[in-house]
Formats: sequence, C-alpha cells, structure tokens
Amino acid sequence: MRDEIFDRGGNPQATLLGAPKKVSAHDAALCNGTASHALDFDDVLETMLGHPSAPVLSAAMAVGEKIGATGAAVMTALVAGIETESFLGRLMEPGHHEAGWHTTATLGTFGATAAVAHLLRLNGDQFNHAFGLAGAQAAGMKVSFGTMAKPFHAGRAAANGVLAASLAQRGVTAAADTIEAPGGYAELTTDTLDRTAVSTLREDDYDIKRVLFKRHASCYLTHSLIEGLLQLRPLLGSDTRVVSAVHLHVLPVHLTTCNSETARTGLEGKFSMRFLAGLALVAGKASEQEFSDAWLNHPEIRRISELVQVVPDHIGAQMATPVEVQTIDGRMLRACVDMGIPASGRRVLDQQTRLVEKFDSLVEPVNGRGASTRLSELVQSFEHLEDVRTLMSYTRGRAGASVV
Amino acid sequence: MRDEIFDRGGNPQATLLGAPKKVSAHDAALCNGTASHALDFDDVLETMLGHPSAPVLSAAMAVGEKIGATGAAVMTALVAGIETESFLGRLMEPGHHEAGWHTTATLGTFGATAAVAHLLRLNGDQFNHAFGLAGAQAAGMKVSFGTMAKPFHAGRAAANGVLAASLAQRGVTAAADTIEAPGGYAELTTDTLDRTAVSTLREDDYDIKRVLFKRHASCYLTHSLIEGLLQLRPLLGSDTRVVSAVHLHVLPVHLTTCNSETARTGLEGKFSMRFLAGLALVAGKASEQEFSDAWLNHPEIRRISELVQVVPDHIGAQMATPVEVQTIDGRMLRACVDMGIPASGRRVLDQQTRLVEKFDSLVEPVNGRGASTRLSELVQSFEHLEDVRTLMSYTRGRAGASVV
Repeated sequence: MRDEIFDRGGNPQATLLGAPKKVSAHDAALCNGTASHALDFDDVLETMLGHPSAPVLSAAMAVGEKIGATGAAVMTALVAGIETESFLGRLMEPGHHEAGWHTTATLGTFGATAAVAHLLRLNGDQFNHAFGLAGAQAAGMKVSFGTMAKPFHAGRAAANGVLAASLAQRGVTAAADTIEAPGGYAELTTDTLDRTAVSTLREDDYDIKRVLFKRHASCYLTHSLIEGLLQLRPLLGSDTRVVSAVHLHVLPVHLTTCNSETARTGLEGKFSMRFLAGLALVAGKASEQEFSDAWLNHPEIRRISELVQVVPDHIGAQMATPVEVQTIDGRMLRACVDMGIPASGRRVLDQQTRLVEKFDSLVEPVNGRGASTRLSELVQSFEHLEDVRTLMSYTRGRAGASVV
Repeated sequence: MRDEIFDRGGNPQATLLGAPKKVSAHDAALCNGTASHALDFDDVLETMLGHPSAPVLSAAMAVGEKIGATGAAVMTALVAGIETESFLGRLMEPGHHEAGWHTTATLGTFGATAAVAHLLRLNGDQFNHAFGLAGAQAAGMKVSFGTMAKPFHAGRAAANGVLAASLAQRGVTAAADTIEAPGGYAELTTDTLDRTAVSTLREDDYDIKRVLFKRHASCYLTHSLIEGLLQLRPLLGSDTRVVSAVHLHVLPVHLTTCNSETARTGLEGKFSMRFLAGLALVAGKASEQEFSDAWLNHPEIRRISELVQVVPDHIGAQMATPVEVQTIDGRMLRACVDMGIPASGRRVLDQQTRLVEKFDSLVEPVNGRGASTRLSELVQSFEHLEDVRTLMSYTRGRAGASVV
C-alpha cells in the first residue's frame, strides 16, 4: 500500500508512520489506518463491537499534523470520533455486526468523519453534510476477516473521514439525515435499530472510558478463551498431551467473527478459536511472534485444535467465554475470565504500564530505542503538545525499516 | 472538489477534465467521475438500474492515460466494467435498488474495478482480490439523491475501482468470494438475490448494447413522462392554463427515486416528477438550461405541479409511464412513450447524431469550438487511438473555465 501511495504522490502534509517522507493527509490516514490495524492488535470497544481508534486517530492525527493542531485539539477530536462510533453502535447493534458488516470500517467511517469535522471546526450544517458524505463511503464486511482487506478497512475508514469532512468544509452537500432517514444507513444495515438510544445519551458518561486494550495479538473475542486456558494450563502439568477434549462456550455471533476453520496464515490464526486454544495451552502466550509458520504447523497445537469443540450458546457473554478442558485421566477443568471489564481506579495505572511495555515491544524494532523512548514520553504527555507535528517527527522510522 | 484534489497534490498521471494540470490517476477518477454525473445527464442501463459509464469510464480513462493504453484497450475495459455492473444487477436487482442503495455507487464500484483490473491485465486471483477490495468500499444510498453526494457517488466508485485493482496488482488480498459468499455483499444488500443469473449468461449477448442515453437533463425514470407530455402538449393549444389535472402512473420504485416533493434547486428539480411535468407542458423541453431559478419559480409550472397526482401502480413499466392530462373543457388526453428500448439498426445512426449534438452543446462552452470539434472526432474514432493521452490532451479546457 505504501508503494501505491508513493506512486500516487502528493503534497507533504502528514507523516506516513515509519516512512521517510510525508504524503497528503488523506493518504496518510489511509496508510496509517491500515498499519494501525495490520496486526489486529489495537484497542476494542464493546458498544461499537469493533476497533475504535485505528480509523479515528489515524484521521485526526493526519489532519492535525496538516493544520498544526495542538495535542488537546486532536485528543478532543479523538473523543468526538469514538463517542460517535459508540453512539452509532448503541443505535444499530448488534444487528449491524451480526448481519455481516465490519464496524471498524462502517461505524469507523462516521467516527473518523466526526473527529476531522471537530478538528476543522465545522458548523452544524457542515457536520450534517460531512456525515452524509461519510454515509456515501461507509462499507466493509466481515467476509474479509483473515485477509489484508480487514486492516485496509480501517485505513479506508480513516481516509473516508478526511475526505467527507474536508469536502463538507468546502461546501459539498449531502443528505443531512443520512443515518436516521427512512431508507438511510441505519435502516439499510441493521434490523435492530434502537431509536431510543438517543434519549439515553448522558453528557457526563463517556464510552471512551470503556475502551479495552488487547493483551494478545488475536481477535478480542478470543481473549477470554485464551486467558481461561492460560489459567488452566499450570493444572495440566508439563505436558499438554494429557488433553483429550476442549469445549469453548461462545455466543453465536462469534461463529461469524473468529471461527476460521483453517489457520494456514498468521492472519487466519488470529481469527481461529481452535488454533488459539491449542496455542494458549502449548505455547502459553499469543503475542505477535506466535503467529509464525512454526507455531501454525506445530504438531501438538494441531492435535489440540482438532479436539476443540466450539459450542454456540448463551452460557457466557460477549467477552466471557467459559472453557472446559478434559484430560485422559478423567479430570474436567473449567475457567471463565471476563475480559469485558474496562480498567478503573488503580488498575488504570497497571494498564498504562502494560501499554507502555506493549508500545516498546512493537515500536523499538522499527524506530530504534532512542526515538522510541522519546516518542513514548510525548504520547504520555499528549494533551500538553503545542503542535502534534513534534510527536509525528519521531515516527518516521529508520531508513529501510518496514511497517506496512 | 477540484480544490480539495489540488490541495492534496499528486503526480501528474491523468487529466482532470477541464483543468490545466494533471493529477494522480486515483484523484482524476474521483473528480472526473463526479463531474460525469454532476448534471445527471449521463447514460443509464436498466439491468443495473443505474448509470453505467460515469464510474467505469472515469476509472478506465484515468488509468489508461497513466499507462498510455490504446483506445481499443480502454474500450474493452469499458465493456468489462459495464458487463460486470449489468451482471451484478441481474444477480441482485431489483431488491438492491429498492432497499435504498444507489447502484451507480455500489455496482459502479465493482464495474470500475473490473475495468481497471482488465486494463492492468490482472490474473484470476488478483481479479478476485480486486473484487474483494471493491466490496470493502462499495457504498452510497439513494437518500442522497438531490444533493451533491449523488454525483460524488460516481466519482467515489471510479476511485474505488482504481484503488481496488491497483492494490490487488501489488498483492493485497481480500476475500475471493466477497460478492457471493454467505454474509457477502449480495446477501447484505438485497433480498432478491438470483443465483440463476450466472447460468443465463451468454457469451455473445452483451448488455452494453442496452445502454440508454438521456435526452433530458433529469432522472431517466422521468423521461417517459416528459416525452408523453411533450406528445400531448400541441393538443392543448397555445395556453397550458386549460390543464386542470395531470396523472402519472408510475411503478412504486419511482417513489423512492424521483418523487422529490420540492424543487427548490435544479438538482431537486431533476428528481421531481411534479416539477418536470409542469416544465414539459410549459417550457416544452428539459435541457440543462431549464433547471434554473427562473423555471423553478415559474408561476404556471408551479400551478401545474400542484395539480399533478403521482399514482403508484403497475399499469406502465419501468421506462414507460402512462400520463393523463385533463382540461377545463372536459377533455382527457392520454399518452405513453416507452423509453426503455435501446436503439438498434438504422436508429443507432440517429442516436449518434443526437449524441454528437448533445456533446457539442455541453463541451463547446467549456472547451471552445476548435478543441471541441477535434475532441468529438477523436471520440468517434476512439477504437483506433494508439494512446488515449492524445484524446485527453484536448479535454483540459480553456483557462478559467469551470466544470466541477
């Protein structure tokens, strides 16, 4: 994708993460949004049933860099974008997701639009037209999960937002009621439209506080089963060959999201509950490194994967998958870890520590230690930045490093 | 939009119609596709229930110019694109259109993708991935009709096609069965999926022969009522004030397409059967010039518009609207002109003459007479062009002329 963007050319408005030269804000959003979701390791939000930040932040940072916005302005735009995604989720879910739409792409387009519209200080009419132009672009389906089109969705959503808000600022019009109109986006893409969601909005209750961060490099809906099996793993002793059966009790919606039958590629592995169950028990972790061919073809993981039974029922919850492991000596081990509870109170600090570790492990190999540390400091004092360009100048990577 | 494209910048790969400098092929497709549909005066195809050429040709010409393709290659790509749109229409219509999707945007994205994929000579796998990346972008709803978002849809579809095929050529993957998969694009966007459409495809039967060309600058679904009323107009004598009632018998689908209640802007007027009925009877024509404020506010047109009754029934057909005019002296005049019959045999030559006249009337004011005549000659010998850049060099317009 980066080659395609460079081939296209453009004015140097915004940084392509890890690349030596700038491109247009639109193309930076496209490419950075794709990169942000390429590992499927980014944050999730249960109300939108998708990944909130990849489309929104990629759009807001690209335009913020173009216009020289403050960190506080970009952060406010991020909140506007994520609240938009979450509100639309409350309006349209679970039918939108269950039908087959990929919310990171679809609701992400509206979120990215809201963020850029906020950053560009659009007035009310322009905001409505921007949402109309977002509706003219919001696409992306779960049928692409396990292919490069999934991360592309996040980039496309970010770029859609940049274009929608920028055109609205220039006076391009669209239907002002694109989402809620009869025959509008909501009616066309969900059968669980809940118009009362509007009236339950509370000014002091932000859904951005409910954003969850991935510990494992797989689909968030698989986090609970991985954590559950990691709890049971020590009880098995030193050899997983005692495992004779594994049951995963998942909601039916999991079947269309992370139930890839095969795990031939790392991408497929991230959406294969069977492979991930084997990986958790055998490797004891599921970081980016475990989605290599060596683990995908590991004989013992393959053996366990074939023993896994995915049972669709409502015993658990969206983010809480009851797991059961049977052993050849007749034991039945059970666990259920709820991964749907956002950090609060003191646990926010633990979460921050974990996120800094995750940041370092992903950024240092690309950016080098010095720039990575400086970047980490700037991210942690983001709201005080006078100009987000200061931060972006540390994201260009070393010559020859490859991100996308 | 042109300002937005220039602000973005890009390598000089393809011509922006009527503009003095080149932009990237992607952005030329976006802007030229929008311009092609801005007057809503472009061709239509009943099998796709939309406008086939604006997205497909804008994409094929932009990429054709970038790579220096022959006229024959671009023309073949055009056929590939339009047949794709038409086939998807046969697969998914009328449910897709009736639900509220704007086929020029949605099926147009797949058509533009097919055209560029053909031009770039993608192999079978790449073709499938290109369609997958098209599915990741195909959006656009009829709720935007009467706003600038409608022509934007055509441009967005063209640019979507350029991006989808270009990324697939570079190895980006997507679901290979995006359209037909369970939970894929067809299932998500229509309830009249007809899988037998595949088996009725005939190699020697091209739907491109069924493309219809607009005579009036309004929605094609209103052409029949305009032609019918133009037939009755001489029978009314010199004064339309004898008209006491007008009945239009349209299919129910017309109500969600061209039944704008108001005609405050020229764009709304093009989708208002009531206004168009008045315009046909009073002005006797409906070319681009008749969508000005003077005609929109004409008292006698307003009087007749208020007398119009739009009757949804199945007496007529998609392109054949029975019209009835009652007069104060008790006469009842009836007409029904079928506008759904493509030109064939000798009538193809008549059609060509009319199209050349239409071309001249639209292009001369922008391009000047000399360049316009030369351009018209080149278009008429398109299949013999060794390099389509020859033609595009005549489309840059005069300094200061404004197209978009």
